[in-house]
Amino acid sequence: MLESIQDDGGVTVSSEQLARRGHTTAAQVRKDLSHFGSFGKRGLGYSVDELRDRLRIILGLDQVWPVVLVGAGRIGSALFEYPDFKRRGYECVAIVDSNPEKIGRKWGELVIQPTAKLESLIKELCATLVILAVPASAAQLVAECSVNAGINGILNFAPVQLQVPDGIPVENVNLVMELEALSFQITRASKT
Amino acid sequence: MLESIQDDGGVTVSSEQLARRGHTTAAQVRKDLSHFGSFGKRGLGYSVDELRDRLRIILGLDQVWPVVLVGAGRIGSALFEYPDFKRRGYECVAIVDSNPEKIGRKWGELVIQPTAKLESLIKELCATLVILAVPASAAQLVAECSVNAGINGILNFAPVQLQVPDGIPVENVNLVMELEALSFQITRASKT
Repeated sequence: MLESIQDDGGVTVSSEQLARRGHTTAAQVRKDLSHFGSFGKRGLGYSVDELRDRLRIILGLDQVWPVVLVGAGRIGSALFEYPDFKRRGYECVAIVDSNPEKIGRKWGELVIQPTAKLESLIKELCATLVILAVPASAAQLVAECSVNAGINGILNFAPVQLQVPDGIPVENVNLVMELEALSFQITRASKT
Repeated sequence: MLESIQDDGGVTVSSEQLARRGHTTAAQVRKDLSHFGSFGKRGLGYSVDELRDRLRIILGLDQVWPVVLVGAGRIGSALFEYPDFKRRGYECVAIVDSNPEKIGRKWGELVIQPTAKLESLIKELCATLVILAVPASAAQLVAECSVNAGINGILNFAPVQLQVPDGIPVENVNLVMELEALSFQITRASKT
């Protein structure tokens, strides 16, 4: 939101304006931000630049995050081409796939490597994140291999609950479950 | 989970077993299910078939949901080919795009239509859901058009907060925000 306010030339923003954009209340915006320190001045609102910069530091976006993409299928390809991805500091440093037909192909500057090399690639390139865009049946093994290689976090598109050690954050994106959340809300509303 | 237990030949399942798979507690599983009625028998656990069927009804998966896909780019294509999509009862009945080079192409049995036809397609095909896989700049307009046509819910991949009337559920999938959630957790852990 702050970036889009910046793009529109905004210099300061109030908690009320942020709340309206975020579909929440001004009190909630102030409360949420207060968890991370003191922001803005009473009656003057927040400096857009400053708030953005401080939030970027809180989110860890003041550094580049080297990412290894596992799975050069359609989801992998969509992610690889996603423009916001690089803009926010996530740099894809390697792509691996287990399909011999895909290994050796070039995506941009990168050559698709065999999944067997995942562990050594993570170590060599000091990758901090892996994106798992692989079938459910392969995901757990790839996750374990990534953890062994010292990965710090996993973005998982496979529809399985990964078992990883405590302290390795996993974010799951389950596309069917998102649709099911909609169906549930619509079904429930139609019954009341 | 229940489907994977079915695939493995499981007939009954305990709340403890479900909790282990779902990284939660047996008490939480029982509490969550209790919101929707009475399931299982004390000491005997749940019938896998019955629990699955009842959850499908609760989630609205006992019917087919006609979906219109807006945006025939990479994310749209990944979704269109997603095998679980159709298996769970979401049927893509139309694809629209605003790029003249894409209009007229065939994806499976479907011909990509111009976005200008979105409203009439939703009405004609009685579509209940739209998936927005369009750039941020186009998303609000497409959402409004879909709402006007009587859509019931929106799965939004565009990185914007859509403004829609109350009662139209929106689920947002923001891929960069998922990565940011990981960076945040890793950054915070490294500072403590």
